[in-house]
Amino acid sequence: MRVGLDVGGTKTDAVAVDGSGEIVGRVRRPTGWGPDAVVQGIIETTFALADEAGFSISDIASVGVGIPGMVDSASGRVLHAVNLGVESLDIAERARPVIDAPFAVENDVKAAALGAASLRPGDASMAYLNLGTGVAAGVITDGRIWRGMHGSAGEVGHISVDPHGRVCGCGQRGCVETLCGGGALARAWGRPGELPVLDIFDAAEAGDPVAAGLRADLARGAAAAVRILVLSVDVETVVIGGGLTALGARLEADIVQTLRADAENSAFMRSLRLDERIELLPTGSPVAALGAALLVAAPVECTIPVKETAAHG
Amino acid sequence: MRVGLDVGGTKTDAVAVDGSGEIVGRVRRPTGWGPDAVVQGIIETTFALADEAGFSISDIASVGVGIPGMVDSASGRVLHAVNLGVESLDIAERARPVIDAPFAVENDVKAAALGAASLRPGDASMAYLNLGTGVAAGVITDGRIWRGMHGSAGEVGHISVDPHGRVCGCGQRGCVETLCGGGALARAWGRPGELPVLDIFDAAEAGDPVAAGLRADLARGAAAAVRILVLSVDVETVVIGGGLTALGARLEADIVQTLRADAENSAFMRSLRLDERIELLPTGSPVAALGAALLVAAPVECTIPVKETAAHG
Repeated sequence: MRVGLDVGGTKTDAVAVDGSGEIVGRVRRPTGWGPDAVVQGIIETTFALADEAGFSISDIASVGVGIPGMVDSASGRVLHAVNLGVESLDIAERARPVIDAPFAVENDVKAAALGAASLRPGDASMAYLNLGTGVAAGVITDGRIWRGMHGSAGEVGHISVDPHGRVCGCGQRGCVETLCGGGALARAWGRPGELPVLDIFDAAEAGDPVAAGLRADLARGAAAAVRILVLSVDVETVVIGGGLTALGARLEADIVQTLRADAENSAFMRSLRLDERIELLPTGSPVAALGAALLVAAPVECTIPVKETAAHG
Repeated sequence: MRVGLDVGGTKTDAVAVDGSGEIVGRVRRPTGWGPDAVVQGIIETTFALADEAGFSISDIASVGVGIPGMVDSASGRVLHAVNLGVESLDIAERARPVIDAPFAVENDVKAAALGAASLRPGDASMAYLNLGTGVAAGVITDGRIWRGMHGSAGEVGHISVDPHGRVCGCGQRGCVETLCGGGALARAWGRPGELPVLDIFDAAEAGDPVAAGLRADLARGAAAAVRILVLSVDVETVVIGGGLTALGARLEADIVQTLRADAENSAFMRSLRLDERIELLPTGSPVAALGAALLVAAPVECTIPVKETAAHG
């Protein structure tokens, strides 16, 4: 049994994947703050998952962890996971005395990309674009995570697409993330609410011009990210996931419409058929946990199971 | 002997490369217009090169052709090479009755990327950014051209980075190419002259505010392309070539300065050290012809010679 955990800022999503690549169990639990709580949470969630899916800890073939932070690909050490209060943490070293299995750790968006790719075994390459509090993408080619030289492959959230745009948390102006990041949109909206981006969409539909502008920004930023991924890496498909997919069909329609409008004056853009190359994941899809389960431990090398890639041919 | 030809809009640059990967001969001749003239030019230039370097046509192991247009990677057919008056052309089929050697054809920027990479055998990945009349990049990873799914990998020239920017030849607004393409800059400058971008630089130094703005645009566009390549593909190095490198140290200084200024407010951008990851080729460097010579014919698969990649380890 392979276990995959997506350790998010507020909750941890865990799945158990059997030898044929099927998800046979899933649990979600709150995530703790700081390295001790994160490790304890990973252990407890794994035990809860074993309980839920009816397997024992000794049946675990591997544990994969997706985590929002930098992951040193050689050592598996997590660095600067600021949303979890983690500066530097070797999860494997800390958890292995309790769960005696190989651990693999990966950045959560890259893990999600692997999970999303495993659901599309026909694609030789794809990108997973995560629209959450922040914005980043993971690129998969030939069933493997494309990390780049320093792990910044797919960091399209911090490419500036408007020199006069809003200042980004990263210090630049007009980053893709300032347009389509949930955090940036909530700050620009500035009104209280549990789900500010949902409020923006509703207010836009009720005629609020500020909301309409921000809603257009979201589609514009996502469209820019898709364009960048196709015109740099040239992936076949861009699968869109993350918290903002809770907006569902409304978000997808906005992005498709924006891509089509942008292509109206450009035969070159039309030739790329970007509107046909995106796909929105259903909200709550456990792609990051699934991808984490598919990580191969030590060395951190990532492959889609043979069953899946066999379908390529 | 391997022959490589860079068939440009006005001239064809050809090199002969021996078994150890060294350039042992080079000739440059004007390029003709239309498919017949293009094929005839390739044949004549190859004969001139053999004459110059002292080998016979029967010594040719392969002929590689880099050409500004789309190249179907399966068939090697050139499509839409509008600057050469070529709509569709099978160079190999037409030239092989005269030069009996395997032919390989590739887009010129992708060929140049391969050539530039062969000069940097230590890099596991790099991009070649061509600043010419237009702007495009080629990406090399593990010694091979990264084509992407539909050959649009590296087409960073047509990523919009300013919604209020100038209209691009492609129909979009604010494309990277509108900022740092020689054609777009010449149009924006609008004054007669043999070398408009050189005129822009000189006029900027003499205090002309329009020229200063365009000069800043050039650096801004090139910096944006570098940022996009690192934050999408994450190559180690971006090697800059193309006609605009005739500006030499002035251009390099402008780009470095722009990258540094952009990083001033962003710890994230500083961490990427983009200013240290660019390199300007000497003007007239025959990277496209060299890369064409390194193309491997049928199937169009492209590798740096073993001698070079051996230095990787």
